[in-house]
Amino acid sequence: MSSILAIDIGGTQLRAAVYPLSGTTPTIIQRTATHGMEAGVLERLTVLIDSVWPDGPVDAISVAAPGPLNPYTGTIISTPNIPAWTNYPLAGLLSRKYKVPAFLGNDANLAALGEWKFGAGQGHHDVLYLTLSTGIGGGVICNDMLIEGSRGMAAELGHITVLPGGPVCSCGVYGHLEAVASGPAIARYVIEQIAAGQTSILHSSLELNARDVAEAARQGDKLAKEAFVRAGSFIGQAVADYLHIFNPSIVIFGGGVSQSGRLILDPIEEAMKRNIMDKSYLEGLQITTVKFGDDAGLIDALAQAHIRLSKAG
Amino acid sequence: MSSILAIDIGGTQLRAAVYPLSGTTPTIIQRTATHGMEAGVLERLTVLIDSVWPDGPVDAISVAAPGPLNPYTGTIISTPNIPAWTNYPLAGLLSRKYKVPAFLGNDANLAALGEWKFGAGQGHHDVLYLTLSTGIGGGVICNDMLIEGSRGMAAELGHITVLPGGPVCSCGVYGHLEAVASGPAIARYVIEQIAAGQTSILHSSLELNARDVAEAARQGDKLAKEAFVRAGSFIGQAVADYLHIFNPSIVIFGGGVSQSGRLILDPIEEAMKRNIMDKSYLEGLQITTVKFGDDAGLIDALAQAHIRLSKAG
Repeated sequence: MSSILAIDIGGTQLRAAVYPLSGTTPTIIQRTATHGMEAGVLERLTVLIDSVWPDGPVDAISVAAPGPLNPYTGTIISTPNIPAWTNYPLAGLLSRKYKVPAFLGNDANLAALGEWKFGAGQGHHDVLYLTLSTGIGGGVICNDMLIEGSRGMAAELGHITVLPGGPVCSCGVYGHLEAVASGPAIARYVIEQIAAGQTSILHSSLELNARDVAEAARQGDKLAKEAFVRAGSFIGQAVADYLHIFNPSIVIFGGGVSQSGRLILDPIEEAMKRNIMDKSYLEGLQITTVKFGDDAGLIDALAQAHIRLSKAG
Repeated sequence: MSSILAIDIGGTQLRAAVYPLSGTTPTIIQRTATHGMEAGVLERLTVLIDSVWPDGPVDAISVAAPGPLNPYTGTIISTPNIPAWTNYPLAGLLSRKYKVPAFLGNDANLAALGEWKFGAGQGHHDVLYLTLSTGIGGGVICNDMLIEGSRGMAAELGHITVLPGGPVCSCGVYGHLEAVASGPAIARYVIEQIAAGQTSILHSSLELNARDVAEAARQGDKLAKEAFVRAGSFIGQAVADYLHIFNPSIVIFGGGVSQSGRLILDPIEEAMKRNIMDKSYLEGLQITTVKFGDDAGLIDALAQAHIRLSKAG
């Protein structure tokens, strides 16, 4: 029986799994530390691949990796956690070594694909996926097709201006969604407000993160709740924009910040209503969170293999 | 020889043309006044269609109309200039009367399709089209496919928030691109600044329009130039967002305001550079204006017929 070899390149871990061609339950999963700042990442990856390589034929190797990358050429342009992989033709290297087709996709784009094909978005033709985490990223399915763009750099959904002249983003532009509503942005807001004299059960510290803020909010801390309302308002404003742009039938939230549940989802939904141009965009719209958790990158890579193989065939 | 009957529903004029199935030169074009506020628009339209109906077979009737409308059901939801056409199944009515398939599409979306298939966007796979006029609308081609959304309401590109808390938009939301950068918004800014004491060769008047402002700017009027720089900055900010979202290889501007040329295009391009997250989005990017002018709606409708017939076949 032929199979797909799925790989997830994470900042902390490299993961590899083998899936039967027509199934979503892996026959084996293995993980190893990435150690991206040290040499030999490709060697660690190939040792990992060798450790799961099945006896039967492999139809494709499919890799999910953090962007920016070019899915058409299979090249990683740069990836913050593995500096040596700059303009790095990862798919080509794997394809030549293992003599099978190899595909490379942006992890946030592939998360949209994975949730659409196997998860929360099944049965929908138009899906908006947004990951709220250390950064804010996303992926979009339009009419059963992943939006990739002319060079595969589309769907950078955290990088739209929601507050002109606002805080500087990780990308260098001012006022992007990621700069005001990511996990670190939520923590930074609390720190700034404490410095400005607001009271809170939280203590200002460089280690403060969005999870601490969520915990304080659940204990009734006013500033912590306000930090989520503020972030959620910006996210909801952006989601309303995306409804006008893509008119999806489902919005799926992933990432650590979305695990704060109603704390973040309530202000998001209120801001969506406030910023929508016509209520018909909201009629029948499903708003939900991801189905897949920790090993999501592997099933996302599996979804990519299915799509690419069906196009090739 | 079989042919396509193309129709453009304008606020002022109804237009109909007949195109050979494999050509872009109409054998006949006829126009008549819309008189949308009076009864009998459908009757005027069918008289117009009868006047151009060819002797040979017609493969399809294809209609471009202002939105909101549902391209999947062929129903006009509402159209400001023809109040009687509310939830109006125009494509169905025409199809039954003329016994041929009839298609209906949003005029801004179809303009993207027309420019991609026959105009400035030929050869590109990923096209961003923006019309800058009384309103701001748009259309997007991704991977050779028109983005329509789950109910055909996608690509409302004038309705994203570029200035939270800014002026109210025609749709009721505050701070949308259309509210700060459409033709009327440019004129309104000049009127407000004159009221606030700025000097200008322009005189404050309800009839003042963006064309007057462009003329004054060409004569060196400081306030008039500033009005275009302000509008262009917001448009460029939004276009940078759209590059991150769609990663197109070409941006095409249409509509009356884009005819102001460098007056508006220079500040747009400067703001794009200021707001882009990575310069690779701008590498090789073409920025241009539409190929088709006054009768564009007809060739846009022709493009729609080609796409829909090829899908059906």
